[in-house]
Amino acid sequence: MNQDLRREREAASFNPELLTHVLDGSPENTRRRREIENLILNDPDFQHEDLNFLTRSQRYEVAVRKSANMVRKMREFGIADPEEIMWFKKIHMVNFVEPVGLNFSMFIPTLLNQGTTAQQEKWLLSSQGLQIIGTYAQTEMGHGTHLRGLETTATYDPETQEFILNSPTVTSIKWWPGGLGKTSNHAIVLAQLITKGKCYGLHAFIVPIREIGTHKPLPGITVGDIGPKFGYDEMDNGYLKMDNYRIPRENMLMKYAQVKPDGTYVKPVSNKLTYGTMVFVRSFLVGEAARSLSKACTIAIRYSAVRHQSEIKPGEPEPQILDFQTQQYKLFPLLATAYAFQFVGAYVKETYHRINEGIGQGDLSELPELHALVAGLKAFTSWTTNAAIEACRMACGGHGYSHCSGLPNIYVTFTPTCTFEGENTVMMLQTARFLMKSYDQVHSGKLVGGMVSYLNDLPTQRVQPRQVAMWPTVVDIDSPDSLTEAYKLRAARLVEIAAKNLQNEVIQRESKEVAWNLTSVDLVRASEAHCHYVAVKLFSEKLLKIQDKSVHSVLRNLCLLYCLYGISQKAGDFLQGSIMTESQITQVNQRIKELLTAIRPDAVALVDAFDFQDVTLGSVLGRYDGNVYENLFEWAKKSPLNKSEVHESYYKYLKPLQSKL
Amino acid sequence: MNQDLRREREAASFNPELLTHVLDGSPENTRRRREIENLILNDPDFQHEDLNFLTRSQRYEVAVRKSANMVRKMREFGIADPEEIMWFKKIHMVNFVEPVGLNFSMFIPTLLNQGTTAQQEKWLLSSQGLQIIGTYAQTEMGHGTHLRGLETTATYDPETQEFILNSPTVTSIKWWPGGLGKTSNHAIVLAQLITKGKCYGLHAFIVPIREIGTHKPLPGITVGDIGPKFGYDEMDNGYLKMDNYRIPRENMLMKYAQVKPDGTYVKPVSNKLTYGTMVFVRSFLVGEAARSLSKACTIAIRYSAVRHQSEIKPGEPEPQILDFQTQQYKLFPLLATAYAFQFVGAYVKETYHRINEGIGQGDLSELPELHALVAGLKAFTSWTTNAAIEACRMACGGHGYSHCSGLPNIYVTFTPTCTFEGENTVMMLQTARFLMKSYDQVHSGKLVGGMVSYLNDLPTQRVQPRQVAMWPTVVDIDSPDSLTEAYKLRAARLVEIAAKNLQNEVIQRESKEVAWNLTSVDLVRASEAHCHYVAVKLFSEKLLKIQDKSVHSVLRNLCLLYCLYGISQKAGDFLQGSIMTESQITQVNQRIKELLTAIRPDAVALVDAFDFQDVTLGSVLGRYDGNVYENLFEWAKKSPLNKSEVHESYYKYLKPLQSKL
Repeated sequence: MNQDLRREREAASFNPELLTHVLDGSPENTRRRREIENLILNDPDFQHEDLNFLTRSQRYEVAVRKSANMVRKMREFGIADPEEIMWFKKIHMVNFVEPVGLNFSMFIPTLLNQGTTAQQEKWLLSSQGLQIIGTYAQTEMGHGTHLRGLETTATYDPETQEFILNSPTVTSIKWWPGGLGKTSNHAIVLAQLITKGKCYGLHAFIVPIREIGTHKPLPGITVGDIGPKFGYDEMDNGYLKMDNYRIPRENMLMKYAQVKPDGTYVKPVSNKLTYGTMVFVRSFLVGEAARSLSKACTIAIRYSAVRHQSEIKPGEPEPQILDFQTQQYKLFPLLATAYAFQFVGAYVKETYHRINEGIGQGDLSELPELHALVAGLKAFTSWTTNAAIEACRMACGGHGYSHCSGLPNIYVTFTPTCTFEGENTVMMLQTARFLMKSYDQVHSGKLVGGMVSYLNDLPTQRVQPRQVAMWPTVVDIDSPDSLTEAYKLRAARLVEIAAKNLQNEVIQRESKEVAWNLTSVDLVRASEAHCHYVAVKLFSEKLLKIQDKSVHSVLRNLCLLYCLYGISQKAGDFLQGSIMTESQITQVNQRIKELLTAIRPDAVALVDAFDFQDVTLGSVLGRYDGNVYENLFEWAKKSPLNKSEVHESYYKYLKPLQSKL
Repeated sequence: MNQDLRREREAASFNPELLTHVLDGSPENTRRRREIENLILNDPDFQHEDLNFLTRSQRYEVAVRKSANMVRKMREFGIADPEEIMWFKKIHMVNFVEPVGLNFSMFIPTLLNQGTTAQQEKWLLSSQGLQIIGTYAQTEMGHGTHLRGLETTATYDPETQEFILNSPTVTSIKWWPGGLGKTSNHAIVLAQLITKGKCYGLHAFIVPIREIGTHKPLPGITVGDIGPKFGYDEMDNGYLKMDNYRIPRENMLMKYAQVKPDGTYVKPVSNKLTYGTMVFVRSFLVGEAARSLSKACTIAIRYSAVRHQSEIKPGEPEPQILDFQTQQYKLFPLLATAYAFQFVGAYVKETYHRINEGIGQGDLSELPELHALVAGLKAFTSWTTNAAIEACRMACGGHGYSHCSGLPNIYVTFTPTCTFEGENTVMMLQTARFLMKSYDQVHSGKLVGGMVSYLNDLPTQRVQPRQVAMWPTVVDIDSPDSLTEAYKLRAARLVEIAAKNLQNEVIQRESKEVAWNLTSVDLVRASEAHCHYVAVKLFSEKLLKIQDKSVHSVLRNLCLLYCLYGISQKAGDFLQGSIMTESQITQVNQRIKELLTAIRPDAVALVDAFDFQDVTLGSVLGRYDGNVYENLFEWAKKSPLNKSEVHESYYKYLKPLQSKL
């Protein structure tokens, strides 16, 4: 093992294994996760080639092979639990994406949620076995966020009992669905249902797009790859254009809404349940943010422990760059954030499962708050993580720009999370809508519950938003609980400001909607403050459950750093409401520097506790053994440009130029 | 032309052509720039293929072809002025980089600066004609920032009058130089000079690495490509390992230092002049930040004018997304920043040229301040631009993730600027060193000049940093001059805090260097505040020079937005020193929203004024005609995955799986 890493590990003040158990939820979970990971690592069929050296078409091919292999293996190993599938996939795909992913994550779940028993019987088994390879085609070239704006039509023809699918404009071409370009032979297509001359809005249809056996696009179907992207090279995100393409009536998913053979439309009783899937996917993305940021921190912190550069004292050996305060200031707040998001991710997962059980018993009461909270948290964690991964990358100096660091791939694989499954700004505004509703409810004398219950404490009938400041509070900057209170006051204040500004705009403008738009910057700010409060609160509460003293101590420092760093970054918010004083902010900045020094000896152990397998990190810089430079040289030799001593372009373009001189 | 863009252009309150003249420096400059651009655009030899669809090796080949073509064309057209070469290159390479770039930007300039007349005679002509293709090899695998740490050795052998070059360790392998991997046949190598058993530090040597005529690596030379990176696909950044590789004594660049035939070392008289090149390159990078951000804003704002989505009022047609306040809040502060950086870039360029003339006459007095200022401004503008390009990309929704937007390429081509030519944190600390020196000078009773002259106003003998707040000031948030004053006070306060904290640490610690490290977070913060003040000041001063009333009016709004947005983001800094009051900060946030509305009608004209050719933008979304969706569909069809109807991996992996079921 690298000497620096060995020394760091020996000097740690706590046992990282215990912290790994905390992150996994229990020692048993850790054991089982590793067991599954080892299934792959010990399997001779599992061979990890470095996709960085391949062309896009080769990367796609490797991914198809891996997907096919994975489906076989999961069956062989009997892995069926969704969580376990996730672990299995993670280690199998190594930061890359899989072309058949949407078959399992979208096609089958939608079939299960919205298909009748007959429909499930018809399609489920063959899609589980990849005879049918399905995807989910919703987004169009011209329409993403605004579902009502989707243009694809499915017009019912009672003569033949078929739906006629059409992409009437260029903007209506389905665009982006993963696996649609080359891999899938079926798609669940979202289209405006028209029957008896009337449009009934979006409904889901099972649409065969390629012929089973030959895989050729069917007549009336134009399908292909949408072209190169920022990352996702292995994924054939695709387009789909349909011209008077007919499918049987039975291909409309009819568990809820129905079209009778004569074309009569039967409305669904409720559509709240489709809601649940969205919440589930977004909860999952919060966990993804935590994992991606944890990976980035692992690489950047290990590398910073191994890299020696410059000097602190002249004449002495070059220090580890982790000893520079500026490097600690770049990385440790992100490490603290990674832990915060791990706990936020665990919370939303648990809460989803708890509420989902309630839904099974017909109790939908907690769903609206969860929906609103998860929307905001998805945006909050993904925006933060997005910037943080890049900060980790740039903290690795030059080598962070090389794919050897693994960081560019982590970034490009993560960044779409800010946009897909609900564009982040739109998500923040959804949370804001719930906050405004809750604020109004409190104002009309009713109490609100859950994470927004702090709004109950807002004195009514006040004119000046700033009077929130009058709440008596003395912030103790060494107490996570007290800092959580400070974040709560900040959230309450910003929610109130947004509400008042919204009211003022409503008075001045002709419409509520225009007023909403003209307050939206304040509304997003309020949502962010709310989500930040939730993250701080969950981290603080987690501390209470940590038994081991040394683990508790190091996590407490991380929690304090997370809280204080946020205050330092948004000092204006905490000063403006007089939540904190000027001299407290000065103390916060001083205390942050002390915490950097306190966390320094445990930094490597804190990332070791995330327990990523070397192969999962996909990084030369972040390897557990840390033989960085030798590994790097071996890695570089595999570059496609090194295949021949002299590149053919020399003969074509440079040599002729030289002889002309 | 796209209807939306036409409408936007017709509604603009000013003539963008006049603003283009401001940006170019004069109408004559605009005319000449366009003339050169048209040389390429109208040349049948100029053909722009979309590199996005090619493999790395193909991209490298295209770039070599383009480089060779460009060298021929520049000679043909008689383009020799450095500024004009830049325009020519920009339009020729279209956001991509060129493998022979370092021959012109580093090899030849270093030869001119550090070579004797005899050496220039020997190598200049053939390197200008690309018979010699040179690069500049300084960075090693284990050493970038810390030059004294470089390990490559050049040991003089008086017997043969040769230098023996060695890469004694893995970490000493030269790593990163552009064009080194496959393209160059010579490199200027920086190595520790050893003669008569003594090491004299880094010196530059001209090292042949490949044989002229065959291009094969010479014996003793191991050279190759360092592998795939985040962007820069066309560039063969390379490694170079030397094993007892001998070069003649005359290959050491000897204009300043010399090694006599017997091995006697002759010291240089002064090395301040090498300093100048560094300042020049960094000044250029400030301009690059401005250009890259301007491009990103052009694409994101044009697309936001063309894209219709969601609804503000129910039932009405989908609005342009540029009408959403949140979208304006994402983009307009960045647009204002792009203009600010354009003016900062122009300022540092002018100042460099002015001071450089002085240097020619032996006057080095202004060089230290310029060096310190440019270091910080390089870091300040590149960090901001880095994040801003990504913000522009993500403001384009899903399409921002596609290479069709051009934004991913702009990002990956720009982001290395944060690290190369001086890592940004190191740069900020260089500026901080100058600020601390200036602060000490004022404290010892001497006046300081230039951009730091505000430190002269610091009352001496004060104990509490916060007392800066006592300076009488009433900030008028509608006056750029008054806001500049506010930024000045903030900078003064943060410089003073850093200085006081540094003094405290010096008292407590055993060494000045340890104290410096433990204050470095404060020092970086002070430098950032200083640079922000400079940017605000230069933008405000620029307004005074704008003659046209309508151009002045729209630029004034942008300047206000730039100032107020910065205050809003760093409200804590302005509140803490009591530079501004809580109610002023509330007004600032309100005023920002008003400015968004005011700028909205001119947004498209403001990016048109940057006057990028469609081809330079390399973007489907940012095209001047804006036929976004049709163009996008045509673009996607060229995806390499669309070459055949069915990808071969289907037969290999999916079909067998299907038949097994």
